[in-house]
Amino acid sequence: MHPQSILRFIGILILFLGLSMAVPLLVSIIFKEGSASAILYSMLITSGIGLLLFFCTKKDEEIHFNHRDGVAIVTFGWVVAGLVGAIPFLLSNSIPDFTNAYFESISGFTTTGASILSNIEQLPKGILMWRSLTQWLGGMGIIVLSIAILPFLGVGGMQLYKAEVPSPVVDKLKPRISDTAKTLWTVYILITMLEIILLLGGGMSLFDSVCHAFCTMPTGGFSPKNASIAQYNSIYFDCVIIVFMLLAGINFSLHYKLIKGDLTIFYKDPECKVFLTMVALFTLLITLNIYGIVYESIANALRYAAFQVSSVITTTGFVTADYEKWPSFSQYLLLVCMFLGAMAGSTGGGMKTMRIMLLFKHSYKEIFRIIHPHAVTTVKLGGRAVPPEILSSIWGFFVLYLGIYVISALIMALLGLDMISSLSSVAACIFNVGPGLGVVGPVKNYLTLPLMGKWVLIFDMLLGRLEIYTVIVLLMPEYWRK
Amino acid sequence: MHPQSILRFIGILILFLGLSMAVPLLVSIIFKEGSASAILYSMLITSGIGLLLFFCTKKDEEIHFNHRDGVAIVTFGWVVAGLVGAIPFLLSNSIPDFTNAYFESISGFTTTGASILSNIEQLPKGILMWRSLTQWLGGMGIIVLSIAILPFLGVGGMQLYKAEVPSPVVDKLKPRISDTAKTLWTVYILITMLEIILLLGGGMSLFDSVCHAFCTMPTGGFSPKNASIAQYNSIYFDCVIIVFMLLAGINFSLHYKLIKGDLTIFYKDPECKVFLTMVALFTLLITLNIYGIVYESIANALRYAAFQVSSVITTTGFVTADYEKWPSFSQYLLLVCMFLGAMAGSTGGGMKTMRIMLLFKHSYKEIFRIIHPHAVTTVKLGGRAVPPEILSSIWGFFVLYLGIYVISALIMALLGLDMISSLSSVAACIFNVGPGLGVVGPVKNYLTLPLMGKWVLIFDMLLGRLEIYTVIVLLMPEYWRK
Repeated sequence: MHPQSILRFIGILILFLGLSMAVPLLVSIIFKEGSASAILYSMLITSGIGLLLFFCTKKDEEIHFNHRDGVAIVTFGWVVAGLVGAIPFLLSNSIPDFTNAYFESISGFTTTGASILSNIEQLPKGILMWRSLTQWLGGMGIIVLSIAILPFLGVGGMQLYKAEVPSPVVDKLKPRISDTAKTLWTVYILITMLEIILLLGGGMSLFDSVCHAFCTMPTGGFSPKNASIAQYNSIYFDCVIIVFMLLAGINFSLHYKLIKGDLTIFYKDPECKVFLTMVALFTLLITLNIYGIVYESIANALRYAAFQVSSVITTTGFVTADYEKWPSFSQYLLLVCMFLGAMAGSTGGGMKTMRIMLLFKHSYKEIFRIIHPHAVTTVKLGGRAVPPEILSSIWGFFVLYLGIYVISALIMALLGLDMISSLSSVAACIFNVGPGLGVVGPVKNYLTLPLMGKWVLIFDMLLGRLEIYTVIVLLMPEYWRK
Repeated sequence: MHPQSILRFIGILILFLGLSMAVPLLVSIIFKEGSASAILYSMLITSGIGLLLFFCTKKDEEIHFNHRDGVAIVTFGWVVAGLVGAIPFLLSNSIPDFTNAYFESISGFTTTGASILSNIEQLPKGILMWRSLTQWLGGMGIIVLSIAILPFLGVGGMQLYKAEVPSPVVDKLKPRISDTAKTLWTVYILITMLEIILLLGGGMSLFDSVCHAFCTMPTGGFSPKNASIAQYNSIYFDCVIIVFMLLAGINFSLHYKLIKGDLTIFYKDPECKVFLTMVALFTLLITLNIYGIVYESIANALRYAAFQVSSVITTTGFVTADYEKWPSFSQYLLLVCMFLGAMAGSTGGGMKTMRIMLLFKHSYKEIFRIIHPHAVTTVKLGGRAVPPEILSSIWGFFVLYLGIYVISALIMALLGLDMISSLSSVAACIFNVGPGLGVVGPVKNYLTLPLMGKWVLIFDMLLGRLEIYTVIVLLMPEYWRK
């Protein structure tokens, strides 16, 4: 462990977050809001703490971060980001209660999108911009985490993606990560800008366009509007956002390859093919299920089914329809989508398509083995054999994920929630979706949940976002032993 | 494949089932019921078909059953037993509809206990005895299946139990199975007799005692009473049945060892320790949850919690309380119990304690591996290392189990059931419990479900009971290839 270096890193993170408050400050000044001073204070406090940490820790010349350091930086990084993010909410009195402010902030940085706000539009624009920015910055963290850091930590089968993005530095973790990060962030920023332009082109205000794009690319789902995307009731906006939610649910290294000229990469990549097929299949099933029951025209059924499926499977959480009024089949299928999640290496949460594919390929192999007990079989992905230790990682991940899900939902039930609300609030948070069913349904929010329940969900959001292991490891006495 | 030998075996099975109808026939004659003739006809028809099959197939002198034969015998055996079992229901006009009769019969032979009967007590006693007997015979099949056959087929990690029961014949499957079967059936019959005596001693009628014992030992849960065990409202009967449900949920080879003089075997066996600890823990949690809310006295809360937990975790399905009136935490915990199930090698269904233990031990190993990436770690059970191929079997099993569960519940929702009813009806059937929640709650039945839904559940009962693989394998084109 290198506590000095870890603290130094956290200091830089806090400083960076403090400086990024310049964006909401600017918005506040432009809109001449009283909250500008609160944001300024938040910025000064945060940057100050960040600088202090930075200067009080000494620089190691040549640090070789090990697994333990990596896990600590990631987990403490997100926990601290949540604290920093809550400051503007608290100082501006937009969310006066600490638990609520931390819930909203962690929901932002984990790109979950679960909100405790019941009247979003009454908040100052500067604060709304900060709320969206927490998601966008969280998304930047996630891309690097899932493509550059987790593969090196060997978490939940992400080793598969080692060396996905070409880098001149192969062996050393630190230069490799910063190299990969630069490439991926360029892609992330480019796609965000493209979405802003398209939303502006459709007549959305600059502020709303930026906020929505900031919450689409990280598959976050915060909206500055009370009724989310439903407020606009525009087919154009629905279509633009569907496309960008799906882009956000696709592995960002594929976007990189696409930009480098490999135009058929989405079709060639086995995981991407399965992901997009699932989106199409579930959209079709829900369209058929709601057509005639909820919507008179098939076009409308398709429009709302496509949006909700894309939003939930990518774990974004934008809403254009109150799916609690849909038949139970559609609701249940959306719950399954939450669980499945988007592609590995995207900003989406959930189990990830790659893991689901490997789990089922493995089960098929086991069936085959009963028929041919002496045959030697391997699980393959895209023609390449998947090493057993990667499968082993994924199984462990899957079981822990389910175990924590079941126990969290039990605690929510113990706190008095009905069964559907317990199951769906935990699903919406641990899979980083946002809206659920029941008391946390698409047109409701998390404000009325019991205090203890909010902390369970905060923990679940972190667990889900950091792929379980990264958080759990820190709770093991073994981790802290020399 | 040896189709002649498989048919011959099925013929013997049908003949055996036909002859066993002598028991309900006797009951019918004693009670001077009109249904006696219907049972006699059923017996003659069934035995006739069995004899016909037996004599029309020629005997192979030395058959070496392979994996394919084993799978075919087991699956077709249960499907055919269901058909045979439905005949007395149909001919006596007790259940005039074929789907309903087959549902009740398969629910019997798979020891599930899901019933389509709304007024059980109006049925002739002979038919009720047959209904109980289907469960008891099903249980005999299950013990041999799980301790002698599945380990050899290598299904779902049951390989762990290879050579659990000592047998002079080690290498050859057939003599080994019949040897093991004799030992286990002796134990099964002895425990059943003991339960009958204890129930009689408490003042239950001979008929009811036999019926209940016949449905306890296979963890079946059919009762000849409309209100199940609640009808008696007797602490003595509750206690006796709790003990015998738990015995039925324990690996029968442990009972064998107990009888052989190893008195501390339940304590020494790691799986048994975890199983009984879970029962105690869940009972405690539910007692605390329902005390003061549903029951005024802690003694009553404990009594009903202990019964329902024992009944559901062993997947028996007897009922002494309408747990749908319990808080959502207790209901949800019972749903978790259904999923967990009893010990491997018992007559219970569900995932089985051993698999759950190994899944979590493996997850822990993966956490450890992140902290110590280069350490060599193995998963151990009772001090012995578990081979990777057994873990691999269990993972495959777990994923298939969940996958089929999710898809079945989706179909139930598509057929119009609400979400809780969809999720719980499939759980109650695939985990072979019986009663669920919602429209199939503890004081309701499966009669009103849509036709298609009943067939989905029939399929699920078979899948769950035969540990998924045994049925799924037959659906693979690969299986039928030469």
